[in-house]
Amino acid sequence: MPDRLAGKRVVVTDAAEFMGPDIVSLFREEGAEVIADTSDLCAPGRCVSLIANAGHVDVLMVNLASGNNNFSVLDTGDETLDAMFARMVRPLHQLTRAVLPQMIERRRGKIIVVGSASGMRGQPKRGVYSAARMAQHGYVRSVGVEVAPHGVNVLATGQTFVENPSYFPADYQVTEEFRQRLRGLPAGRLSTGREAAMFLLALAGPETDWLFGQVFAYAGGWVV
Amino acid sequence: MPDRLAGKRVVVTDAAEFMGPDIVSLFREEGAEVIADTSDLCAPGRCVSLIANAGHVDVLMVNLASGNNNFSVLDTGDETLDAMFARMVRPLHQLTRAVLPQMIERRRGKIIVVGSASGMRGQPKRGVYSAARMAQHGYVRSVGVEVAPHGVNVLATGQTFVENPSYFPADYQVTEEFRQRLRGLPAGRLSTGREAAMFLLALAGPETDWLFGQVFAYAGGWVV
Amino acid sequence: MPDRLAGKRVVVTDAAEFMGPDIVSLFREEGAEVIADTSDLCAPGRCVSLIANAGHVDVLMVNLASGNNNFSVLDTGDETLDAMFARMVRPLHQLTRAVLPQMIERRRGKIIVVGSASGMRGQPKRGVYSAARMAQHGYVRSVGVEVAPHGVNVLATGQTFVENPSYFPADYQVTEEFRQRLRGLPAGRLSTGREAAMFLLALAGPETDWLFGQVFAYAGGWVV
Amino acid sequence: MPDRLAGKRVVVTDAAEFMGPDIVSLFREEGAEVIADTSDLCAPGRCVSLIANAGHVDVLMVNLASGNNNFSVLDTGDETLDAMFARMVRPLHQLTRAVLPQMIERRRGKIIVVGSASGMRGQPKRGVYSAARMAQHGYVRSVGVEVAPHGVNVLATGQTFVENPSYFPADYQVTEEFRQRLRGLPAGRLSTGREAAMFLLALAGPETDWLFGQVFAYAGGWVV
Repeated sequence: MPDRLAGKRVVVTDAAEFMGPDIVSLFREEGAEVIADTSDLCAPGRCVSLIANAGHVDVLMVNLASGNNNFSVLDTGDETLDAMFARMVRPLHQLTRAVLPQMIERRRGKIIVVGSASGMRGQPKRGVYSAARMAQHGYVRSVGVEVAPHGVNVLATGQTFVENPSYFPADYQVTEEFRQRLRGLPAGRLSTGREAAMFLLALAGPETDWLFGQVFAYAGGWVV
Repeated sequence: MPDRLAGKRVVVTDAAEFMGPDIVSLFREEGAEVIADTSDLCAPGRCVSLIANAGHVDVLMVNLASGNNNFSVLDTGDETLDAMFARMVRPLHQLTRAVLPQMIERRRGKIIVVGSASGMRGQPKRGVYSAARMAQHGYVRSVGVEVAPHGVNVLATGQTFVENPSYFPADYQVTEEFRQRLRGLPAGRLSTGREAAMFLLALAGPETDWLFGQVFAYAGGWVV
Repeated sequence: MPDRLAGKRVVVTDAAEFMGPDIVSLFREEGAEVIADTSDLCAPGRCVSLIANAGHVDVLMVNLASGNNNFSVLDTGDETLDAMFARMVRPLHQLTRAVLPQMIERRRGKIIVVGSASGMRGQPKRGVYSAARMAQHGYVRSVGVEVAPHGVNVLATGQTFVENPSYFPADYQVTEEFRQRLRGLPAGRLSTGREAAMFLLALAGPETDWLFGQVFAYAGGWVV
Repeated sequence: MPDRLAGKRVVVTDAAEFMGPDIVSLFREEGAEVIADTSDLCAPGRCVSLIANAGHVDVLMVNLASGNNNFSVLDTGDETLDAMFARMVRPLHQLTRAVLPQMIERRRGKIIVVGSASGMRGQPKRGVYSAARMAQHGYVRSVGVEVAPHGVNVLATGQTFVENPSYFPADYQVTEEFRQRLRGLPAGRLSTGREAAMFLLALAGPETDWLFGQVFAYAGGWVV
């Protein structure tokens, strides 16, 4: 019986979106007690109350989804930029501040940000999305170094080309644009959500006890 | 007589702060017509009117300064994060949208973001600052790729350890913390503002006509 | 009972050196059938015969150790450079060529190179060592992309500050130079060999089925 | 009259190959006294005698070309790997050792390696070539840090998609494979040799006085 997360309490945010469902199911199979949150993290005070209600948290999976983001920079207004930050950056900071004290006190804990490779390499029509996603990485690198002396691991992935209904819906997968993009991808196919969750499982486990503030590409060879 | 920017019209934002003064003086020596703006770019509509009033812009130097940023993530509230983004990310987007159409029409132009290495590697007490600075890099990479087919170069630096009154004031330079940080820096000393401006001069010139969406560390060996 | 590598045949080279002992013991605990090779891979034909004798290989752990490498570039002769390459680069190529055909035929298999972070960031007195180690990374990235269409994963780590008798002997760990180096390391301590082997275990498992030609820093925050 | 290298003595190796011709002509236009060497640097003692004969060297342009390299890893024998290293890595080490003492004594000087982006990202059929090119980068990073305290700048580029008869001959530029590769390149076209030499000019000048052990991609957006 798999038990890589036996005895661990894990909070997963946006549990019904982005990588949420795959994380929740795999981590439960591996023995974790998972708090699968689907509340609106933009609501005032919600990040703080989520952590307060969760109690003991061994692993916080910061899985934050945004809506459609496929616009030219010329057609992207301030409100889209602001929404991206409100949805993906501010909750990261609020969740981190909320959960760090207990982890620092125990000298143990992991914050894993499910991030994006957008912005590690450039893509057209992803300007503000890349900005928000790279903000997450910058935050993780510096906070990761800051809390390293306390034994807490703050890490992130940079994923792309992972099958999920938000970014790669079925009707997009039959387009010529999609086929052309796949041609430039060493993997030659999308990752399943399950495969991506397997990678996240490794980051959430003892494999990363000695790693701090690091960003891991998960991109089928698109970023290496 | 130096003339590497002869005949070029250059806009420099926050001209009295951060790298502004060194850019303005060097670029003028090199023959550029420099519009040295010191207005508050957070004011509604100001980015748009700055570019509209400037008229023809060959090079836009996006030099955006924030105030003191040296706080533990635990002591940094949402308002600091919001202020960083309002000061360094939103104006970048507004300025870019304002100036791109004329550059695209002429199939020529450069947007150079004076960025930071904070977040390329982590540093303690720089969480939200690193987030904002890395947001700039992510934006540059993706917008840079998007407008490449139009012959416009969007590029950024990631600088640190450059002498300037905001981040390395004289009284900080005598502290043991500063000396310890220098010890880990291959260069062994701060860059002068003039040296950093020389590097920016190369990015603003024909040296980068074929480069798109790229981020250049300028960090004395701290990031390579 | 742990069984993450149950049913897998794994070859570990230089099994008595560098990361060899820790890999062998952990991978056996996890159910792998491990061929722990300690032969001299510089001997003509040895890499080919090792793989031929091994038969079916699911995972090849390319763990290649060099001797002492701590010399100024000015005091390092060609013979040291040549020895580094003979010891760490040529065997990588020979082993890869020997094992790829069976993996390509089965459309499955992993080649994991236990590499170094030397050369990802610079260090004094590591010129030729960094050259040889980065050669491994360059090889992995390109071969990894080349064989990706065949479903074979070629990956590498870039480790440093991992406890092992070759690079961090006990008498070095008490020196001021060592203490000074640790001060610049976010982790603040060496990784145990066991911790590093845990990370390699994740790379050798299904966690990386969709990753190709990627290099993973394992460096306690020194490289991120 | 351009004079960015006035009064500088520059050695350019392999002056008739790779980036040699473009560097020599541009650097001479900019006022440098250029020693354009075309001798066989693999000949015993040749690197040492080149530098000895050159006398005072302000800038050493390590431009090393290899022959055709476009083979599958499975069809690449040890002799090709060895030849790549003999041609691109060993001369780098010999030239560096030969020229460093005078630069260290003057506390001033630049060694600029004209490198490749092969291996920064992977490409099929470039395994051993990527290994040799990345060995150059690893060497530059560590030697660059080692000699930084002496005021000497050791730097490298990682170029690709630059027009030159060795790697992009006219008959290759009409193939579908080439067109497909260009489609994945943000720049959408090859760099001219002149443009690439302009970038190298900036690295060879005062723009990089404060940079040590750094590698600069020059890749039209392929690596950023």
